[in-house]
Amino acid sequence: MNQEEKIPYKIYLEESEMPKSWYNMRADMKVKPAPLLNPGTLKPMTFEELSGVFCDDLVAQELDDNTAFIEIPEEIRNFYKMYRPSPLVRAYCLEEKLQTPAKIYYKFEGNNTSGSHKLNSAIAQAYYAKKQGLKGVTTETGAGQWGTALSMACAYLGLDCKVYMVKVSYEQKPFRREVMRTYGASVTPSPSDSTNVGRKILAEHPGTTGSLGCAISEAVEVATTNDGYRYVLGSVLNQVLLHQSVIGLESKIAMDKYGITPDIIIGCAGGGSNLGGLIAPFMGEKLRGEKDYRIIAVEPASCPSFTRGKFAYDFCDTGMICPLAKMYTLGSGFIPSPNHAGGLRFHGMSTVLSQLYHDGFMEAKAVEQTAVFEAAEMFARVEGILPAPESSHAIRAAIDEALKCKETGEEKTILFGLTGTGYFDMVAYEKFHNGEMNDHIPTDAELQVGFDGIPKFPGNEF
Amino acid sequence: MNQEEKIPYKIYLEESEMPKSWYNMRADMKVKPAPLLNPGTLKPMTFEELSGVFCDDLVAQELDDNTAFIEIPEEIRNFYKMYRPSPLVRAYCLEEKLQTPAKIYYKFEGNNTSGSHKLNSAIAQAYYAKKQGLKGVTTETGAGQWGTALSMACAYLGLDCKVYMVKVSYEQKPFRREVMRTYGASVTPSPSDSTNVGRKILAEHPGTTGSLGCAISEAVEVATTNDGYRYVLGSVLNQVLLHQSVIGLESKIAMDKYGITPDIIIGCAGGGSNLGGLIAPFMGEKLRGEKDYRIIAVEPASCPSFTRGKFAYDFCDTGMICPLAKMYTLGSGFIPSPNHAGGLRFHGMSTVLSQLYHDGFMEAKAVEQTAVFEAAEMFARVEGILPAPESSHAIRAAIDEALKCKETGEEKTILFGLTGTGYFDMVAYEKFHNGEMNDHIPTDAELQVGFDGIPKFPGNEF
Repeated sequence: MNQEEKIPYKIYLEESEMPKSWYNMRADMKVKPAPLLNPGTLKPMTFEELSGVFCDDLVAQELDDNTAFIEIPEEIRNFYKMYRPSPLVRAYCLEEKLQTPAKIYYKFEGNNTSGSHKLNSAIAQAYYAKKQGLKGVTTETGAGQWGTALSMACAYLGLDCKVYMVKVSYEQKPFRREVMRTYGASVTPSPSDSTNVGRKILAEHPGTTGSLGCAISEAVEVATTNDGYRYVLGSVLNQVLLHQSVIGLESKIAMDKYGITPDIIIGCAGGGSNLGGLIAPFMGEKLRGEKDYRIIAVEPASCPSFTRGKFAYDFCDTGMICPLAKMYTLGSGFIPSPNHAGGLRFHGMSTVLSQLYHDGFMEAKAVEQTAVFEAAEMFARVEGILPAPESSHAIRAAIDEALKCKETGEEKTILFGLTGTGYFDMVAYEKFHNGEMNDHIPTDAELQVGFDGIPKFPGNEF
Repeated sequence: MNQEEKIPYKIYLEESEMPKSWYNMRADMKVKPAPLLNPGTLKPMTFEELSGVFCDDLVAQELDDNTAFIEIPEEIRNFYKMYRPSPLVRAYCLEEKLQTPAKIYYKFEGNNTSGSHKLNSAIAQAYYAKKQGLKGVTTETGAGQWGTALSMACAYLGLDCKVYMVKVSYEQKPFRREVMRTYGASVTPSPSDSTNVGRKILAEHPGTTGSLGCAISEAVEVATTNDGYRYVLGSVLNQVLLHQSVIGLESKIAMDKYGITPDIIIGCAGGGSNLGGLIAPFMGEKLRGEKDYRIIAVEPASCPSFTRGKFAYDFCDTGMICPLAKMYTLGSGFIPSPNHAGGLRFHGMSTVLSQLYHDGFMEAKAVEQTAVFEAAEMFARVEGILPAPESSHAIRAAIDEALKCKETGEEKTILFGLTGTGYFDMVAYEKFHNGEMNDHIPTDAELQVGFDGIPKFPGNEF
């Protein structure tokens, strides 16, 4: 290992160096992301419409396209101090393994009990709910990372937390469920008989193992029909990208401190929260024309929203009850083939990232599952950390870029986001070890089924 | 939260401040721990006898009662930099929850993929095996933390790693098994038909689910009958306590840097590796008469080696093939009632800690399981980290001491070791949530069964 004199393996900021404001990329976008539309009227969603579902402060953040910096309340900064700053790691061992002249850095967000970056927004959303005097929040969870993060945040603030967990996950992932219970959340398998929509689905489909769309519908129903509750969501929304900007801000402060400038910035992309957070301050410089960076979104080849999707207004949920968002989408009816990166199986994408991609400010790349797990295993062995399948998409792309540098001899600096750990994903690793990974890439005909479900109305041509 | 001006939530040392030597408490002990005895001759084990089982450098460390500081080889220090320094955390939120004037600190060793402090010794033992030109190492694992740590260390050094995993754990903990496979280890359920001792046990007890004693016997057989292999062990041994001293050394450097002096130091005690490591430099000062500290070992009431055991020469393994060690023991035949802190179910204790306890340099305390999980859940909710059941024994004792301070008004400073995370222990948390925890405390008659198995010979009166 040749450690550079001045660059430690892990850069931790001092508490006093941690960001005091989030950064809102929209403020520097000349072309703003298209507004959410009311699916009934096709008019932009108003503050009043949204505040029945979300907390007031969060709706304000959702709709604010102009304020660049929004102060992080002190209570949230105190919570951040419990698990942040996250380390910016120089991947000396990975570089040596690859024999690349590239310098590789990753921002590691997995060193907290939720196991991922989700906690950065969970605490913010729970805080604003508490500030509004609410009793609690509701949400859905699939694999369980978001539900865990929200449970932790609510336990800290003494807020009630009701999680609707897709029934098949509830039964197959009892460990995640117990983590949420440890943090005092009530976890209900969805569909359940505790909501109208749940009872309806159970009557129509007895024995169903549930879906994320159904769990969302139950969580929204409970939030909107109970006094003192609101619904919260862990990705896609503008507010979530805003909170996640803490990832990129910390990264940039750490890099600036050591005089490091990344040439390439890489993140995995599901709904876009981690990628949008990681790139935020760098994209800001790019939008303002101050600096240039190559920015790469990495998605699974089985769910290729950016690389093969349409840029159009579409529903965010399979139940088609949520507002319409203009985004790269595979259609809300698209069902990706089985893939272990549950966090990357969303059919759409953040409207902010969609606009930036559409306007040429970033690239996208789709990678296949076996190649992702090969990268994950190599990374685990040399860098120690066992990565989540989602995060491993970014690892794959970073390794590929580093290998290109090996060919060309270029000493590029690569920064990627390592969003979380894979401790609860060992079933996926087991399939990989046993050579049973699914690498199906959707055919054009399979994609067309999804595209056919995208609503057609004037101005929504694609 | 009232954060003190100068004390951050988490204290991370700079790389340049990290310890460059391990500290060997034995050098400062006036009464040295009794030597290991050959069970056949009742003579002290020689270098030659031990070096057939363990690497030469490790045998030298095992037998060295006099060298206070042993340099940490640069390769090991580089590996340490991948996951160390571990944070020394000020438990501001726990203090507030308890409304105690006590100041509580914990050294958190769980932020690595093995999930515990075990990695500190695993990399050292693997390094010396590599240095000796060996092909690989063998070991046993029960719950899987030690096996995981060793797999990670061997993957990093390119060393073969053969793990014998108690069959019932192999089947019930497939996730741990897959983590080890991810790091390239071969994991064999024990008893297996790959060894003489395994075949013998399978013939005598078809359908057995195995035991740690049997897995040790298989691992030792493979190490001693294959060229280029040695056996390694994750706790109890002097060498392991030496390597784990990095925990205490880092803690002390961080505390000295901020002018903090602990009044009470608390660690859980199974074989003693974490406790011995945490207290090392503090005990050194105490042994040299420079300072005084209250030092408390915490053990499960179901396996009370210190508080109810005998100080005598006994076998370390149930198979009675290993050397005799003079220690606090419940007898190698003692079977503790079911307890979820698998790492604390050992019938004996490090000879170093046993001697120190015998000579009055430390206290011991036994705690019941439900009380431990109550402490664990409270800690998780306010401090965020989901603790391992083993570590939670120390949390319980730290909370109890902090509550005493609340009664007396004393502003004591408490340091405890948080050895690891409980992500793979959710079955235990589930039992706790369902009110199904076992709190059986062994009766005197049950303990006597174990005591009856302690070998009797002149000088071994108890």
